[in-house]
Amino acid sequence: MMMKKWAFQRNSEQKTTSETPTSSVLTKLMSNLNQSDRRPIIPMAQGEPSLSPCFRTIQMTADAIAEAVHSAKFNGYSPTGGLLPARRAVAEYLSQGLTNKLLPDDVFLTMGCKHAAQNILTVLKGSKLNNILFPKPGFPYYEFLARSCHLEVRHFDLLPEKDWEVDLDLVESLADENTVAMVIINPGNPCGNVFTHQHLKKVAETARNLGILVISDEVYDHIAFGKNPFVSMGNFGSVVPVVTLGSLSKRFIVPGWRLGWLVTHDPNNILKQHGIIESIKGYFHMSSNVPTFIQGALPDILGKREDHISSKNVNIIREAANSCYKGIIDIPGVSCPSKPEGSIFIMVKLDISAFKDIKDDLDFCVKLAKEESVLILPGISVGLKNWLRVTIAIDPSALEDAIKRLKSFCGRHSKKSISVECWLDHIS
Amino acid sequence: MMMKKWAFQRNSEQKTTSETPTSSVLTKLMSNLNQSDRRPIIPMAQGEPSLSPCFRTIQMTADAIAEAVHSAKFNGYSPTGGLLPARRAVAEYLSQGLTNKLLPDDVFLTMGCKHAAQNILTVLKGSKLNNILFPKPGFPYYEFLARSCHLEVRHFDLLPEKDWEVDLDLVESLADENTVAMVIINPGNPCGNVFTHQHLKKVAETARNLGILVISDEVYDHIAFGKNPFVSMGNFGSVVPVVTLGSLSKRFIVPGWRLGWLVTHDPNNILKQHGIIESIKGYFHMSSNVPTFIQGALPDILGKREDHISSKNVNIIREAANSCYKGIIDIPGVSCPSKPEGSIFIMVKLDISAFKDIKDDLDFCVKLAKEESVLILPGISVGLKNWLRVTIAIDPSALEDAIKRLKSFCGRHSKKSISVECWLDHIS
Repeated sequence: MMMKKWAFQRNSEQKTTSETPTSSVLTKLMSNLNQSDRRPIIPMAQGEPSLSPCFRTIQMTADAIAEAVHSAKFNGYSPTGGLLPARRAVAEYLSQGLTNKLLPDDVFLTMGCKHAAQNILTVLKGSKLNNILFPKPGFPYYEFLARSCHLEVRHFDLLPEKDWEVDLDLVESLADENTVAMVIINPGNPCGNVFTHQHLKKVAETARNLGILVISDEVYDHIAFGKNPFVSMGNFGSVVPVVTLGSLSKRFIVPGWRLGWLVTHDPNNILKQHGIIESIKGYFHMSSNVPTFIQGALPDILGKREDHISSKNVNIIREAANSCYKGIIDIPGVSCPSKPEGSIFIMVKLDISAFKDIKDDLDFCVKLAKEESVLILPGISVGLKNWLRVTIAIDPSALEDAIKRLKSFCGRHSKKSISVECWLDHIS
Repeated sequence: MMMKKWAFQRNSEQKTTSETPTSSVLTKLMSNLNQSDRRPIIPMAQGEPSLSPCFRTIQMTADAIAEAVHSAKFNGYSPTGGLLPARRAVAEYLSQGLTNKLLPDDVFLTMGCKHAAQNILTVLKGSKLNNILFPKPGFPYYEFLARSCHLEVRHFDLLPEKDWEVDLDLVESLADENTVAMVIINPGNPCGNVFTHQHLKKVAETARNLGILVISDEVYDHIAFGKNPFVSMGNFGSVVPVVTLGSLSKRFIVPGWRLGWLVTHDPNNILKQHGIIESIKGYFHMSSNVPTFIQGALPDILGKREDHISSKNVNIIREAANSCYKGIIDIPGVSCPSKPEGSIFIMVKLDISAFKDIKDDLDFCVKLAKEESVLILPGISVGLKNWLRVTIAIDPSALEDAIKRLKSFCGRHSKKSISVECWLDHIS
């Protein structure tokens, strides 16, 4: 019997890849690890402090979950956007740093920052080909997501010589009538910078003039340890409509709990008037709410939080930033334009011409994995060729070890060591 | 200063509504409740047993969550599709009723059934306008979701006179070269039926001939209490590729926990060869995983489950089905074509001509809410005009009360009561 062909064949255009650019690079690095190296692998390629024993959440956060689930009050469905007490807890928590105080209705609970980003990018997708402006270097997940939402991605530069500030002239020249939003990440992933109040004001004014929304990823809001205090973009909601994204993940070191939020800062009700709030709510009917008992625990977690968990972690990261910066500027062939002041990353510049047998940043990272069991993300994965993105939120002893291995690796591959070998060949 | 218009205006085509057809009907019913009626409101419009005190999860499930979160082993991110032990637990749990045993790789953990449906419908969306076949009556969320995914929705009938079996002739005539899948819900929501092995085999053969995928929502898998035992569509994976959807929600009465699964039954690897498995995985990179500690608790929950929770609940629902069916067939103007044998719903047919002042099913439900504080979903919300979808999984005493109120309501509005009044007028 002749049967019909299957109707659900995906062609190459329709097929969603199961690999993001970052995951394919990580797979490549992992596959190059030398199994016979007995030294521990040092994981500086991913932004997950919870992999390191020194970063642990406190008992109280787990207790709050256990109490909520045992209460049997949170087994049913929750309303769209979350339970009122949980939304109120986030509104109060974030309002501490804001001039325009938030109301519970400004807060939508999400399955981590990813789900918040997925919501707002889906909402911004239009019937025509809208475009969105992302920072370079940036967080590759956003671009993967935007492309999946059929938004065109355009990049503005972050300027290393200006503490990684946004190139606002470039933003103005990139934007056209189909541009709907620009995204910033503050404190910076991957640059480790913290924007000044003055610079954020300029970002808001530029976006206002262009008529576009500002989306600010503030998941590292509490990790600012340099000269600039953290200022939320939400403070400029009266200049331009702002959506901020955040989560419990980084402050409480529980990225696997998937509790985040999307918050609208819009005292002039522009988002409401333009149908955006309705669309944000509509999206939640399609996707799932945060498990109700996790929402039930949230007022307890945010209300009774003990700031020592956060300040202890921030102290470890500040020390890591100092020792990493000092260690790296001593190594020939690599440099840091500025010492990190926030988040958990440092961007390191490679001088490829200083190495005898390193082709580019990916080649550097593959060989470093193979020879030294150190995992670092090549800059190309975050948009900057011949840079490295280094996660500094790891155990201090591992960080010290990593700097030593990096130094030894760079020494072995530098052109200077060639010259010495050539000279030895020559005199033998 | 002249400023640019905001670029993110949603026009009516782009705007996602924050109301589903069901939620807008529920809002209408709620707003018609009579605040001065002192009797308790009887909630039979939604499928949420956890609203009723007699349906409670057992201590053990909450203990498993508390233990997992306190272990501090599940605070980090989980791999795409879920932790291996959790996927294995679901594979073993579901394999009990299957001839083709499942492997962990066949299982993807999702944020409830909704997220599972969102995944597979997003995957099936093509570059051309694909269409998908849904049952009528059905579960309106699927249609809302399909339209959001730009899939065209076509309906085949479930036949009340044939125990709500699928009209397979209609399926064949509806399908064309752009049809990618058909959806069944078994045990049935909203029909309360359970498909026979023989009928499922015919469904599989029909789908095979059409070259389309079968998606089977089996979230009520354990609630079958009539002559037909529950048979999973997964048993026909060697005839046609099958995706089954399920969750903890109904068996453990924890819909707010949002733990579900998408399972592929495809011993011939057709889905893999056609790029569907890769696309399912790709979708998880965009969306969020289930909170890791909930995954961590899953082997414990499914492995140590005590069947008395389930059999106790099934006994309550069986009794409810009996008494509801008996009660309803005694009331003039309403009827049931068959006694429910599964899930938690019964479909009730209205004879509109028997009432003096009821326009249609929506009017019936609005007046019933207003006069009797009983909430029932009009059939139009699930695709059948002048029917009612009644949730029977409520406290037995409330159900008994509901039948009395329904009887009194129907009596008051029936044409016969008009005749009596006319007669009284006449003789007075």
